[in-house]
Amino acid sequence: MMHDQLKFKKLGIDTQQEHVVYMRSDCHICKSEGFSALTRIKVSNNDKSIVASLNVIESELLSPGEISLSKGAREALQVPEEAYLTLSHIPPVESMKFVRSKIYGHTLTFNALQEIMVDIVQGNYSNVDIAAFITGCAGKMSEEEVTGLTRAMVEVGERLDWGIPVVADKHCVGGLPGNRTTPIVVSIVAACGLTIPKTSSRAITSPAGTADTMETITRVNLSLEEMKQVVKKEGGCFAWGGSVKLSPADDLLIRVERALDIDSEGQLIASVLSKKVSAGATHVVIDIPVGETAKIRSRKTAETLKERLEKVAATVGLRLKVVLTDGTQPVGRGIGPALEAMDVLAVLKNETSAPQDLKERAILLAGDLLELAGEVPNGQGVVVAKEVLETGKAFEKFKAICLAQGGFTLPTFAAFSYQVKAEKAGTVNKIDNRRLAKVAKLAGAPDDPAAGVLFDAPLGKKVVVDEVLYTIFAESEGELSYALEYIANEKDIITIF
Amino acid sequence: MMHDQLKFKKLGIDTQQEHVVYMRSDCHICKSEGFSALTRIKVSNNDKSIVASLNVIESELLSPGEISLSKGAREALQVPEEAYLTLSHIPPVESMKFVRSKIYGHTLTFNALQEIMVDIVQGNYSNVDIAAFITGCAGKMSEEEVTGLTRAMVEVGERLDWGIPVVADKHCVGGLPGNRTTPIVVSIVAACGLTIPKTSSRAITSPAGTADTMETITRVNLSLEEMKQVVKKEGGCFAWGGSVKLSPADDLLIRVERALDIDSEGQLIASVLSKKVSAGATHVVIDIPVGETAKIRSRKTAETLKERLEKVAATVGLRLKVVLTDGTQPVGRGIGPALEAMDVLAVLKNETSAPQDLKERAILLAGDLLELAGEVPNGQGVVVAKEVLETGKAFEKFKAICLAQGGFTLPTFAAFSYQVKAEKAGTVNKIDNRRLAKVAKLAGAPDDPAAGVLFDAPLGKKVVVDEVLYTIFAESEGELSYALEYIANEKDIITIF
Repeated sequence: MMHDQLKFKKLGIDTQQEHVVYMRSDCHICKSEGFSALTRIKVSNNDKSIVASLNVIESELLSPGEISLSKGAREALQVPEEAYLTLSHIPPVESMKFVRSKIYGHTLTFNALQEIMVDIVQGNYSNVDIAAFITGCAGKMSEEEVTGLTRAMVEVGERLDWGIPVVADKHCVGGLPGNRTTPIVVSIVAACGLTIPKTSSRAITSPAGTADTMETITRVNLSLEEMKQVVKKEGGCFAWGGSVKLSPADDLLIRVERALDIDSEGQLIASVLSKKVSAGATHVVIDIPVGETAKIRSRKTAETLKERLEKVAATVGLRLKVVLTDGTQPVGRGIGPALEAMDVLAVLKNETSAPQDLKERAILLAGDLLELAGEVPNGQGVVVAKEVLETGKAFEKFKAICLAQGGFTLPTFAAFSYQVKAEKAGTVNKIDNRRLAKVAKLAGAPDDPAAGVLFDAPLGKKVVVDEVLYTIFAESEGELSYALEYIANEKDIITIF
Repeated sequence: MMHDQLKFKKLGIDTQQEHVVYMRSDCHICKSEGFSALTRIKVSNNDKSIVASLNVIESELLSPGEISLSKGAREALQVPEEAYLTLSHIPPVESMKFVRSKIYGHTLTFNALQEIMVDIVQGNYSNVDIAAFITGCAGKMSEEEVTGLTRAMVEVGERLDWGIPVVADKHCVGGLPGNRTTPIVVSIVAACGLTIPKTSSRAITSPAGTADTMETITRVNLSLEEMKQVVKKEGGCFAWGGSVKLSPADDLLIRVERALDIDSEGQLIASVLSKKVSAGATHVVIDIPVGETAKIRSRKTAETLKERLEKVAATVGLRLKVVLTDGTQPVGRGIGPALEAMDVLAVLKNETSAPQDLKERAILLAGDLLELAGEVPNGQGVVVAKEVLETGKAFEKFKAICLAQGGFTLPTFAAFSYQVKAEKAGTVNKIDNRRLAKVAKLAGAPDDPAAGVLFDAPLGKKVVVDEVLYTIFAESEGELSYALEYIANEKDIITIF
């Protein structure tokens, strides 16, 4: 139907995960659908279709008969430079009826969760719809629903099968700056001969994800095929989860969850476990840092989470060990991709300046994983992990994996820096992890990989007046100022008593 | 702080009620805040500030150092052609903590609701945040919470005081195409000497709101001051609620509610009653059409709604009469602004072709309102209303109000039309109001005022093959085709048996 076709024009607007279609205000389809940013329209290019939200152009950015798409929408539809797109109205998204029924207190069946996940992954849910799903479920999911959600999330994505009985993995619930144990744990465990196909996220609200950190050393944008080859060759990998697309529903849910700052236990469990099942893992160690300004704030919450994680894991066939760790202060010195990578390298190279807290945590988690996977007898895990690390075998494995992924380079410091100093003498007695992470982010992390915070004031340290508490690094003066503006108004990020 | 200032460039993008800020991907603030459509940034122009969501420009639409805003954001900040805007990061929106606590089962106090409404009206909530509030409250509000919400919604907007003891008003819960009784009721009641400062909405998901309909006859974009003058002169008015800005929170909530298709009883009650209290009304008649494809689908739901409306009205000091009416088919013949205006005029002018169902409903509601307000003795309302209408006094009042608002013109038919005919002979026995309304919308209503549907197949009508069931009107061929494409796939919008 030619009358519903419009010519694509590139505008270069990135609206991230929500697809947007741009139409002139005098376009008849625009009039038919009604002017609203909440209006959703189906856009098709040959046999591909997406649903997009409408933004209206009231200027000459578009000529009559032209249409544009946000970057993500254009990629999803694979629109070339010259193309005519077909527009059509959409029926209401069917699976939203399940979301509405959940909101009104009904239970979600596995089939309902399946339909919801399929619609979310196909882009049929707007951010507002996803927010309704998350809110409707928060704090109101039974074990059966969490299990159903986990399974549904696995089903809508790829699922790997390594053809071996034991596949190791680890995960950290997060929220603790600098807690970059993953590259070390993977190196130790893979050096012991286990298979550990680790995928990691990029930062969403934090100054660095493991993928951001590892990207300062090697390539992490592996395709699923490339990831498989690296793991087959070296036993482990440091891949970015986003490019291998395991559990794609999770990526869409998690952004809205964080924007709302809603930590739904049920969704956290489904998120973590669906990723592990999708990656083909069988034996998984989960690190839950507990601290007032970490993600999990109390021992009690951590214990409940541990229990539910174990129950749901059992129903989806995962062997799980949950470890509660100290979450009262940052781990290591670096906060930000390159600065954290330097910590990781220092530990792997057994440098004397290496942060001991990071080293100990990595050894602990690797030891637990070796034991859980049956690779070493119980009680021997930590000893073996320590030996593999200190003899340099872990570093050899780390380099081998990096080279298999496409290279091994060393991270560098940013050009601009500012030292935050103690205003009085005393002992460091409290650290606000959240605000410290915010400083690193405002300085440019993780988009500027060398930006961040170099932390030098662990709990209990005695400091004199003007002693450096932490150094802010930034790649431009503007970003440095932006971070400094923030700390000028924020008292007691580090409390000295 | 000059380093956080960027030069405004107009792009002319309308994102409706959610403010968007456009920044280049290489802009340092953009990097600091992180790339996400869910990232929120504070934008200031002199002493005004708004919070906007970030969209990233990856093309030459913006030059380095430039920034743009969506239409609504620009209007809210009153940005002239040439201006430098200041950007800053925002702390988390405080009142979202109440939304989160509601989600987890706690009760919202009046103070919490007040803070939430203030933040919503100030634009501090994104659509995703509003969706979380709506979802968290849906089906879970106590009478106290609904009363609190009603009061909070009144407080964040203007509130009129007419200085007289009896101020009449009417409201229809909606969902029934063509049910345009308001202009007739206002004319009758004002002709009887009562004060009825009626504000009406534009269509959100329907083919016409009363404001859209009246705009085909007179000016409805009255300022609050103009509205007051019209009411003081003529006793009544037909003003668009959006321009007088009574209960502004409601306008923001209602769009997200409708996008989610969540009809929360508590929010519906607060929405209706807050508008009435804000308008200074004391005696209000509420029309609830009940029918399978109307907004309220069952007698039982309607009865519960009636009861709760009456309870909450009592606590906020409103005298209320709730009338349940037939919602099984459209009222009158027109569906769409101009077509409905023609029906209204035909009734007011006592033309023999005037739709009797519309006339009877208007008389019923006007009669109830006259009785409730104590203007006529009980049992006399309908008689008096009928007389005022049939003697032409109501039409005189209607014209006088229109002239006071800025003019009186007659609506016209659209240029393009298509007759939908019966495929078989029989009796009309079911009408899908929702899909019939959708046809009118796809044909261009309400943005094209003359577009819509002229309905000719009331329930019980006997039709022969090829008899016209309804006529679709559109202002362009493209829009007509768009509507025809829809009906080609939709069976039984009108069922003949």
